[in-house]
Amino acid sequence: MSQPLKGTVILDLTHVLAGPYASMILADLGAKVIKVERPEIGDDTRAFPPFKGDDSAYFATINHGKESIALDLKQQEDRELFERLLAQADVLLENYRPGVMDRLGYGWATLHAKHPKLIYGAVSGFGHSGPDAMKPAYDMVVQARGGVMSITGERDREPVRVGASIGDIAAGMFLAHGILAALLQVQKGGDGQMVDVAMLDSQLALLEHAVAITSTTGEAPRPNGARHPSITPFETFHAEDGLFVIAAGNDVLFQRLCKALALPIADDVRFSTNQSRCENARLLKRLIEAVTIDRPAAHWIAELEAAGIPTGPIQNVAQAMEDPQMLARNMVVSVLDKAGTPAYVAAGNPIKMSAMEDPKTRAPAPSLDGDRDGIVAWLETKEAGST
Amino acid sequence: MSQPLKGTVILDLTHVLAGPYASMILADLGAKVIKVERPEIGDDTRAFPPFKGDDSAYFATINHGKESIALDLKQQEDRELFERLLAQADVLLENYRPGVMDRLGYGWATLHAKHPKLIYGAVSGFGHSGPDAMKPAYDMVVQARGGVMSITGERDREPVRVGASIGDIAAGMFLAHGILAALLQVQKGGDGQMVDVAMLDSQLALLEHAVAITSTTGEAPRPNGARHPSITPFETFHAEDGLFVIAAGNDVLFQRLCKALALPIADDVRFSTNQSRCENARLLKRLIEAVTIDRPAAHWIAELEAAGIPTGPIQNVAQAMEDPQMLARNMVVSVLDKAGTPAYVAAGNPIKMSAMEDPKTRAPAPSLDGDRDGIVAWLETKEAGST
Repeated sequence: MSQPLKGTVILDLTHVLAGPYASMILADLGAKVIKVERPEIGDDTRAFPPFKGDDSAYFATINHGKESIALDLKQQEDRELFERLLAQADVLLENYRPGVMDRLGYGWATLHAKHPKLIYGAVSGFGHSGPDAMKPAYDMVVQARGGVMSITGERDREPVRVGASIGDIAAGMFLAHGILAALLQVQKGGDGQMVDVAMLDSQLALLEHAVAITSTTGEAPRPNGARHPSITPFETFHAEDGLFVIAAGNDVLFQRLCKALALPIADDVRFSTNQSRCENARLLKRLIEAVTIDRPAAHWIAELEAAGIPTGPIQNVAQAMEDPQMLARNMVVSVLDKAGTPAYVAAGNPIKMSAMEDPKTRAPAPSLDGDRDGIVAWLETKEAGST
Repeated sequence: MSQPLKGTVILDLTHVLAGPYASMILADLGAKVIKVERPEIGDDTRAFPPFKGDDSAYFATINHGKESIALDLKQQEDRELFERLLAQADVLLENYRPGVMDRLGYGWATLHAKHPKLIYGAVSGFGHSGPDAMKPAYDMVVQARGGVMSITGERDREPVRVGASIGDIAAGMFLAHGILAALLQVQKGGDGQMVDVAMLDSQLALLEHAVAITSTTGEAPRPNGARHPSITPFETFHAEDGLFVIAAGNDVLFQRLCKALALPIADDVRFSTNQSRCENARLLKRLIEAVTIDRPAAHWIAELEAAGIPTGPIQNVAQAMEDPQMLARNMVVSVLDKAGTPAYVAAGNPIKMSAMEDPKTRAPAPSLDGDRDGIVAWLETKEAGST
């Protein structure tokens, strides 16, 4: 067993979510991530709820297994230490507004000239180019401006936010792709490069279906509640005890569904094709619910699964975290505290690789500046080795 | 300018969305993607609306720049050709249910024994392990079961689907991470490995905040409309002509907001901390809207931006595709037809890399089996080169 990024050193200046999510992916793949934080305050999310004792569970779920050193990049002594770290790093990550790193003397052009193999990853609201490069952004701003809110929510009502912070997370995921690709390029003998990912850009990249519809029909799609916009039946239905999902994506599955529910509409022309089912979706929903309302969701899920029809419960996050399939796949892991005791719960790593261990626990999230001595000792060993 | 995956060959058996999204990311990074499709029918999405003439715009937006060969993996002649392609491939991608590739004689163990450097990427609804490995899934089933629907929608109403297909897309993105990491491992001299990504797993991995809240408080969060669950004001507001977003994520921004809106509540104890603002969120929303309702959204966005407050419009997908910032970042690209004329519009590549070209057009999506001759000729050259 080995980790693909074992030996890769990431100097991580990012805070909050998009950047730390990227470095979490890279840490889970084996990278050594050194979090460079502002003295005294550190990453903003250290002060984000929910808390467990004095520590943020939110911070722990994103920053487990990273190391921390506090550096003031405007102070000469700290700059010297930072520059020694830079000389040993494979990747620098930052999420400042464009220009901040340049003013510190650590802009991409300067660093690239000095460290040609260094990879420079930047994630920001709007990217390092374009008219709005300097504007501030949060997750919600890019969810709203990037289009995903406009197709999320109930039909003919106001749009809603996607409950997960996909404004940040999608950008973090694309940044991780760019860093991995750049590491491959360096491993092949190439130079390092700058990877510049914008949260706004990343939103449009998630909208494959909506982009195709908009560009082909000239009409932007609207929110569609819990229904797929162009497949029927593919939505939530009421059972006796609540909602569940049926996703009968083609004619064969629809025929099976009619049989499983004993619905005598398999030959009805109003439902014979996906297009006619879409046109009569409301009527079809009522006919299906007239059957499903009499028994609990678990009953129907078992019946439909036995018939090979994609179906499932709507689980809240507590239920999802106890789902036997999630547990069997090691998707709920413990984050240890410094004493080695399980202290927090986090989502596991969804990237399962046959030659990489998938541990059930994660190393602790670092205290602010908590790894300074170890980092300095490691640095001295590296420097001794390279002379 | 060069592409990090130039020279990497991907044999892509996937169809619909999760797998093809992964191979689109890898193709945009320079990989040669050979789509192996079922004879006569091909990828299901070739028949998905919207259409332009006889061709699916949906298929084109995901499969541009790939090559296609139609092979029946149950026919001896086609199997021989497939095995010759395998011998030249760096990566095999598939999205069948577990066991299908084994029955074809192309399971991971068999292929790994024969081609130790080959990387095998699998994406499926529930992954290749666990009690539900064999169950069918669609995007909506994992959105429902994985928890994201339970936190998306209006407060105290039924949950809604995220408008983008993040059930598929998140899994495709994690698969791409795994493939890139495995390529790096091989480049360092290691063997190929199997990457096994489940759509269900990938959903939990998006829920960092909700997982932290659930595990710390024991209570699963609920849908919260267009509001952030723990920051205020961080939601949509009505202007004269519609909704827009204000995301004042800390006390300094809130003070600036009060000043910009001439709201005399900067010293009001009901709004002096984020916690008190959260407790009085409804009242605060009304006070803010009493001001914003009198002028159009564009007016307020300009005012608040000038004050350095994160804000923005809620754009539909057509507006997002015309956003000057998106256009400046080359996030809206043309997919060419076979004659070289722009035929479709697709989202651009959000992974901007300094040493990689970011072209304004994309090569055509392939016709079914349309590249057979070229692929066979390429194969013969490769085989001649390696003897």
